[in-house]
Amino acid sequence: MNILYDERIDGVLPKVDKAALVQALHSRIPDLTVLHRAEDLRPYECDGLSAYRTVPLLVVLPERIEQVEALLRLCHAQKVPVVARGAGTGLSGGALPLEQGVLLVMARFKQILEIDPAGRWARVQPGVRNLAISQAAAPFGLYYAPDPSSQIACSIGGNVAENAGGVHCLKYGLTVHNLLKVQMLTIEGERLTLGSDALDSPGFDLLALFTGSEGMLGIITEVTVKLLPKPQVAKVLLASFDSVEKAGAAVADIIAAGIIPGGLEMMDNLAIRAAEDFIHAGYPVDAEAILLCELDGVEADVHDDCQRVYQVLTEAGATEVRQARDEAERLRFWAGRKNAFPAVGRLSPDYYCMDGTIPRRALPGVLKGIAELSEQYSLRVANVFHAGDGNMHPLILFDANQAGELERAEALGGQILELCVAVGGSITGEHGVGREKINQMCAQFNSDELTLFHAVKAAFDPDRLLNPGKNIPTLQRCAEFGGMHIHHGQLPFPELERF
Amino acid sequence: MNILYDERIDGVLPKVDKAALVQALHSRIPDLTVLHRAEDLRPYECDGLSAYRTVPLLVVLPERIEQVEALLRLCHAQKVPVVARGAGTGLSGGALPLEQGVLLVMARFKQILEIDPAGRWARVQPGVRNLAISQAAAPFGLYYAPDPSSQIACSIGGNVAENAGGVHCLKYGLTVHNLLKVQMLTIEGERLTLGSDALDSPGFDLLALFTGSEGMLGIITEVTVKLLPKPQVAKVLLASFDSVEKAGAAVADIIAAGIIPGGLEMMDNLAIRAAEDFIHAGYPVDAEAILLCELDGVEADVHDDCQRVYQVLTEAGATEVRQARDEAERLRFWAGRKNAFPAVGRLSPDYYCMDGTIPRRALPGVLKGIAELSEQYSLRVANVFHAGDGNMHPLILFDANQAGELERAEALGGQILELCVAVGGSITGEHGVGREKINQMCAQFNSDELTLFHAVKAAFDPDRLLNPGKNIPTLQRCAEFGGMHIHHGQLPFPELERF
Repeated sequence: MNILYDERIDGVLPKVDKAALVQALHSRIPDLTVLHRAEDLRPYECDGLSAYRTVPLLVVLPERIEQVEALLRLCHAQKVPVVARGAGTGLSGGALPLEQGVLLVMARFKQILEIDPAGRWARVQPGVRNLAISQAAAPFGLYYAPDPSSQIACSIGGNVAENAGGVHCLKYGLTVHNLLKVQMLTIEGERLTLGSDALDSPGFDLLALFTGSEGMLGIITEVTVKLLPKPQVAKVLLASFDSVEKAGAAVADIIAAGIIPGGLEMMDNLAIRAAEDFIHAGYPVDAEAILLCELDGVEADVHDDCQRVYQVLTEAGATEVRQARDEAERLRFWAGRKNAFPAVGRLSPDYYCMDGTIPRRALPGVLKGIAELSEQYSLRVANVFHAGDGNMHPLILFDANQAGELERAEALGGQILELCVAVGGSITGEHGVGREKINQMCAQFNSDELTLFHAVKAAFDPDRLLNPGKNIPTLQRCAEFGGMHIHHGQLPFPELERF
Repeated sequence: MNILYDERIDGVLPKVDKAALVQALHSRIPDLTVLHRAEDLRPYECDGLSAYRTVPLLVVLPERIEQVEALLRLCHAQKVPVVARGAGTGLSGGALPLEQGVLLVMARFKQILEIDPAGRWARVQPGVRNLAISQAAAPFGLYYAPDPSSQIACSIGGNVAENAGGVHCLKYGLTVHNLLKVQMLTIEGERLTLGSDALDSPGFDLLALFTGSEGMLGIITEVTVKLLPKPQVAKVLLASFDSVEKAGAAVADIIAAGIIPGGLEMMDNLAIRAAEDFIHAGYPVDAEAILLCELDGVEADVHDDCQRVYQVLTEAGATEVRQARDEAERLRFWAGRKNAFPAVGRLSPDYYCMDGTIPRRALPGVLKGIAELSEQYSLRVANVFHAGDGNMHPLILFDANQAGELERAEALGGQILELCVAVGGSITGEHGVGREKINQMCAQFNSDELTLFHAVKAAFDPDRLLNPGKNIPTLQRCAEFGGMHIHHGQLPFPELERF
């Protein structure tokens, strides 16, 4: 599936003398694990977006911050690009390696350094798994709220780099809303602290700027996350609809009623049937769409909200609304949703998962638009997504062995993202831009805005050694992709065009 | 009280030819209101921090975005510094004018452009008053959550520039958590959109970076804020303590119990007596400290939470816990708190309001430290503050007519802020850095961090024309103030040292 990968992006990075670099690493950081043989490098050729693959020049696996510091100083001095990687579960190719760059794997930093139950925070190393934080906090009745589907495997450093979300981010926010502090190293090997233990921090909000910056501004060495008390009780309602547009409109109605569900998820008929066939969750296979609405909090409040949501759903035209009778049924309802991706994977040899975000009011229109595009491109699209926050995950079904299908899938995906931008939305909700959506950034931003991104990047990393070719497209790229207007008649940062 | 103002900061800004500038403004933007006579300029010499005063070179009062755009282009071309001002209620001198700069007053942009009750947002011009947004949203059962004490007067543009907070920000967040989108103009007069109508926006989070940047990155021309449904019910508990340390510890206990009050405020004995004398709120004048804890939400939930908070307060050693019997008493309890500043003002000819933020667990220790410093400097300090989020407002009482008292007050204030930093806190919670706390920034950040701030500033405004001398100190200044370490043996950005 390499066709999705655009060779040009790093095809012209300066060639690095690999043998000399290995030699320099061995002599300066003797205890650093360095992988350099082809068979050792192969497992690192992609992250969770396996359609894009590049074997890295070298892989390093540090275990102490001092090693990372020394590595960065060396790479900075020798102008060698560095790509950071956590658990490698990212879905936008943000940790895709470079042929002429070092892949810095932070997975061995997996210590939980401190938990303060009274202050309700945990201080952890970047390689700690998302779920491990909640498990360590559980004895105190606390947990870490953002819960990407990959939470069993993904690490907190990657969550910060991608500003990861999850089923519960409508109510509890994205990663950025659940952080207190990040310790990082600049490409020059300087240690910086972003944020503070207090509610606010003076000066510019570099913590928020850094969160979601996809490894382009610095290397995360420590993260202090906020912990929340576990809700006393959670209930889930399942509502069936005879059209996706009605289900979409019901989402806006729930929010407009002033209710903030713990989770508010939508699946269309194709996704429902796939999940039911796979998990036997008890979904209505004839429904055109279902909504799963979870209410969590204290008992009385949840009871109240369930009644209000029931009423809203009924008024919005739901053909049936069921509350999970017990905890077992509640978990079954969620199991269907959480396994929807692999379930859809059983319908088709390949699928391509999108991640656009739109204002909730635009849901019915965009769902209709996706249906039309699906027909136009003759490719099935299953819709499974975080409806409450307008974060859509259309899954485009295709067969890479059928000539032209992959290209059609990619083109259809691009059209869907541009549709999201057109209604005031964005090309990513929680998966990041990475390598995957770099062309769509040209549709999302104008040249003045992209120029500003490059200037901010240069403030942290003037030589652009950290994760080049990701996240922020060059203006040259956008000009080629089309649709760019050129700033004052010239491309700023002409030196960037080598990436 | 001019002694607090450090002349050196802009004493060496290049002299601007005022007559020529007025002439250029009249000819290029004929319909722009320009004030240039001494008697017209005087009312703009300070913002809410009246200890710092400078008569601006010129004041402009635009009414259309095109005028602002043209003004910025002209100032950029002629290298004239620009200070933006909203309602002028800021407490850290962020809108303090420059003798050699234009004061750009955005107060005439006071239109509420659009309210979307279903999407729960309002799109407004920057000069719209904070409270006016909630008033306009009230017919839909919605409101704008951040509520600085100045909310009747302060404007949303200033709220964004300072990342304003308020009594309710513990539960509902600061300004940055309640924004969707900002339209801004760069110093070059380019229009940029930060954020989006969707939950997330790809690329770097420039909206969060911009929020709280104190007029140094751009001029706000439009703000889209989130609206929240009004809570069904609100109840308040008043707890008395025989020591401030016990009251401080009780705050941590409430949060540790998993309760997020709508507001959680603390007052010490001096503040209690002052407020009671002034407002007759029914406060216990013999208590060493009181806590006011408001619970809001749906009826059943609030009832539940009140019982739990009552129990936590009792276990924490409260000598008395009273729930406001009715809405009238609830409002009286809050009136005492909200008028605490003027009430304390009646005890002393002058007072100086601080704004440090600390981790909640450090509250008892810092309160003890403030008491010791108060004794050491022979100045009374009243404590009135947002205890729940650790945002302290010690009020230092002094008499500017007594020789040396002002200097002692300023020195004591600096010590208190450095104490906040020492326990992992920050020198500002909601008032910003502005001109006031620029020296304390040297204690908060190291030279690498300050260098990064300057580089980010340069990404937006390379000529440093927007609000020079505020928010981010030069390294030269920090070296003189003491406590700075110098980056690689030299000061970066030597050209900045003219500010």
